[in-house]
Amino acid sequence: MKTEELAQSAKKASRRLALLTAAEKNRALIEMAEALARRSAEILVENAKDVAEGRKKGLTPALIDRLLLDEERLRGIASSLRDIAALPDPVGEIVAGWRTAEGLEIERVRVPFGVIAVVYEARPNVTVDAAALCLKTGNAVILRGGSDAYRSNRILAEVITGAAMEAGLPGESIQFMADKDRASLIDLLHMRDQVDLVIPRGGEALKDFLLEHSKVPVIYAAGGNCHVYVDETADLKQALDITVNAKCQRPGVCNAAETLLVHEAVAPDFMAAVTKGLQERDVKLYVDAPTRALAGDTLAPLVDATEEHYATEFLDLQMAIKVVASLDEAVEHIARYGTGHSEAIVTRDLDAARRFARAVDAAVIFVNASTRFTDGGVFGLGAEIGISTQKLHARGPLALKELTSVKYVVTGEGHVR
Amino acid sequence: MKTEELAQSAKKASRRLALLTAAEKNRALIEMAEALARRSAEILVENAKDVAEGRKKGLTPALIDRLLLDEERLRGIASSLRDIAALPDPVGEIVAGWRTAEGLEIERVRVPFGVIAVVYEARPNVTVDAAALCLKTGNAVILRGGSDAYRSNRILAEVITGAAMEAGLPGESIQFMADKDRASLIDLLHMRDQVDLVIPRGGEALKDFLLEHSKVPVIYAAGGNCHVYVDETADLKQALDITVNAKCQRPGVCNAAETLLVHEAVAPDFMAAVTKGLQERDVKLYVDAPTRALAGDTLAPLVDATEEHYATEFLDLQMAIKVVASLDEAVEHIARYGTGHSEAIVTRDLDAARRFARAVDAAVIFVNASTRFTDGGVFGLGAEIGISTQKLHARGPLALKELTSVKYVVTGEGHVR
Repeated sequence: MKTEELAQSAKKASRRLALLTAAEKNRALIEMAEALARRSAEILVENAKDVAEGRKKGLTPALIDRLLLDEERLRGIASSLRDIAALPDPVGEIVAGWRTAEGLEIERVRVPFGVIAVVYEARPNVTVDAAALCLKTGNAVILRGGSDAYRSNRILAEVITGAAMEAGLPGESIQFMADKDRASLIDLLHMRDQVDLVIPRGGEALKDFLLEHSKVPVIYAAGGNCHVYVDETADLKQALDITVNAKCQRPGVCNAAETLLVHEAVAPDFMAAVTKGLQERDVKLYVDAPTRALAGDTLAPLVDATEEHYATEFLDLQMAIKVVASLDEAVEHIARYGTGHSEAIVTRDLDAARRFARAVDAAVIFVNASTRFTDGGVFGLGAEIGISTQKLHARGPLALKELTSVKYVVTGEGHVR
Repeated sequence: MKTEELAQSAKKASRRLALLTAAEKNRALIEMAEALARRSAEILVENAKDVAEGRKKGLTPALIDRLLLDEERLRGIASSLRDIAALPDPVGEIVAGWRTAEGLEIERVRVPFGVIAVVYEARPNVTVDAAALCLKTGNAVILRGGSDAYRSNRILAEVITGAAMEAGLPGESIQFMADKDRASLIDLLHMRDQVDLVIPRGGEALKDFLLEHSKVPVIYAAGGNCHVYVDETADLKQALDITVNAKCQRPGVCNAAETLLVHEAVAPDFMAAVTKGLQERDVKLYVDAPTRALAGDTLAPLVDATEEHYATEFLDLQMAIKVVASLDEAVEHIARYGTGHSEAIVTRDLDAARRFARAVDAAVIFVNASTRFTDGGVFGLGAEIGISTQKLHARGPLALKELTSVKYVVTGEGHVR
C-alpha cells in the first residue's frame, strides 16, 4: 500500500478507535496475546532468518540480543499484552474539573491523539508493544521498524492485526509499513493531516533524522549516553555495585551506563576495584591518564579515552572512565556529552545529591541507584513505548497517559461574555 | 546582537533563572508592573507611531484594535503582571511521588524548559505577557514580535528588561529580537541547542511558517476558525445571544466565532432573527442559498458564501452562515474547516451535547456557552501566553504549568537490578 493510503486508512480507523470502550480494546489485547502463543512457531522461524542474516552481516552481540526472540521472550511479550489489558483505560479520564466564577462547568478530558507513527530499530518486541499501547489508548498506529528485523516485524504485525480484527477492531488500526526506503519514511513524516504524532525509538541518529525531516510533532525516545558519577563521599561498595550493574546487567539497552566519572578524592581507593570489577565482566575500558595511573595492574589492557569515547553510546560491554575534580566538573561533563536520559550520583552527602539533581538536565536523576531502573514497569507506570529524552509533553517513560492528549468540555446555560 | 549570540545569552541566563526562588521572580514582576506605570507616557508615544503607521498602511480595524495601547490597557497589562506574581510558582512542584516495589523513592518534579522563543504578530501586550509568564516559570524568553508593532514592542521590552535587572535578574533573561527579517527568524528556529521551545502566537500563516522551518519543538497558539452550531433542539433565545456574543463582543481575537451552522429544523424560526441581530451590529454576512431564502428582508445585502469564506478566520465583523441537515453534517463541516480551537453547540438535547463533545476534535468544546470564554483567566488558570490548538504537551490555554517540563528524581540506598 502507498504510504498516503496507509496513513489515510489509519486516520479513518482512529475515529472508530476513539469511541471504543475499554472492554472492547482489552478484548483485542487478550486476543493478540493468545495469537502470539498460538503462532509462536511461525514467528520464531521468521525471527531466526533475521538473526541468521544479522550474524552474517556482523551485527554486534548487543544488536543480536535486541533482535533475538525465543519462546520465553515471546511469552514475555504476550504477558505484557495481558498486563496492558489489565491497566486502567486513560481515555475518558476527567483529569480535572471545576466551576468558574461565571458558573461554567469545565472538564478536562483525556482523549486519544488519533494516529501515532512509531519508527524503531531492529527490536521486534517494539512491534507488539507499540501497537498494544496505541490501541489501548484509542490511537491507530503506523509501524515502521528497522530492516534488520523486517521478517520478524512483518509476521508479528500480521499476527496481532489478525487478532485485533478477530476481536472486532478495524483492521486498519495497525498499519505495518512494508516499504523499507527512506523516501517512504519521509513521505510519512510530512503527513500532518493524517499523522498526529511520531515516536522514534532508537539511537541518536534516528532521532536526528526524524527531527530533521518531520513536519509531524515528534516525541523522541532516543539514545542514552548515561553516566554514573561517584562523589567524594560515596559509599564505595555501593558505587562499585551500581557501576557494574549499570554497565553490565543488560548492556544493549538505553539506560545502561556508558561513562563512569569518579571524584579525585576517592579515585585512589576506588579505581583498582572498579576497573577489576568491570574487566572481570569483560568490559573494555577507555580511560584518562589519572585512571590509568590509579588502576594498577589490570586484567586487560586499558585504552586511552578520546572525545569520541565520551560521546559514544556503546550499547555493549565497553565503558569510558574519567576522574573529575568536583561535582561541578561532573555536571559539566554530563551537560556536554549526555543525551538527557538517565544520570546517577553515588554520594552520602545530602547537599551534593540535591545539587546534582537540580543541575543535571535529564529525564531521570538517580541518587544511589543504578541507571538501569529507568523503566515504565519498574516505576509502576505499566508498559512503555520508550523513554522520552525531550522536555515537551512527556519526559521519562512513555506509558499510557503520555500517549493521550486532552480536550476541554465547557458547559453553560446560555453563557455569554 | 546576532541571533546566535542572543540565543546563547538567553541559554546562559536560563541556568540562573532556573535556580531563583519564587520571591525573587515575583519581585521582578512587581518591579516590571511599576516600571510600566512610571514610563507609560513614553510607551504610548511609541505605540501611537505604530498605530499611525498602521492606519496609513490600511490595517483593518480589528488589527488596529490589537495594536492599540492606551492608559487603561497599559494598566490592564501591569495589573496582569501583579496577578502573575500572585500565582503559585509551578517550578519545584512535586507533581507526583511514590515508592516502588523495590523501595526506590520516585519524585516527578516540575522544572523550567530553559529558553522559550515567542513569535507573535502585532500585539504589544504579548511582549509583556510572554516575558512575565516565562520569567515566572524560570525560563528565559526570546521575543520576536510583528513589525507593525515594532516600536511598541521595543520600548516595552526595554522597560521590563530594565525592571527585571533592577530586581536582580540577569539582563539576558529577556531577549528582544531587533532583526525583523525572515532569515534571522529562521536562524533562531534552527538553534536546538539554545532554544528549548518555540511558541507562535498568531494566525495560521505564522503557525505554518514555524512548523515548516522549526527544528526546535513548537507549541502553537494559532488561529481560531471557530463555529457556533445551533442544534434542532436549541433554545433559540440562547442561540441568538451566544451567536451575537461569539461574533461581536471582540471580533479581533482568536476565540471569536467565524461561521454559524444552523440545523435545518430550526432555521425557519431562527434565520431572520439571527441575521437581523448580526446586521444590527454591522456584521457582514456570507450565506448559502437556504439562509438567504429564510432570512427574508435584511438590513443589508447578503453575500453568497464561497468555500473561501468558510475557510477564513475573519477577525472582523464578518460571518459565514450555513444550514446543515444534521449534527453529523455540522461535525463534518467543523472537521473540514475548523482549526481545532473553540467550537460551540447550542442544544437542549443531552445526547446531542455528548456526541458533539466527543466527535469534534478541538481544544475546547462549548455546550450552551459562547466561544469567547476560551481564556486562561476565565478558566481560572491565570494569565496565558495563548491558546494551544495542537495536541502535544498542552491543549487550550497555555498558562504557567504548560510552560514547564518535568524531571524524575529517584533515590535509593545502593539499589541495583
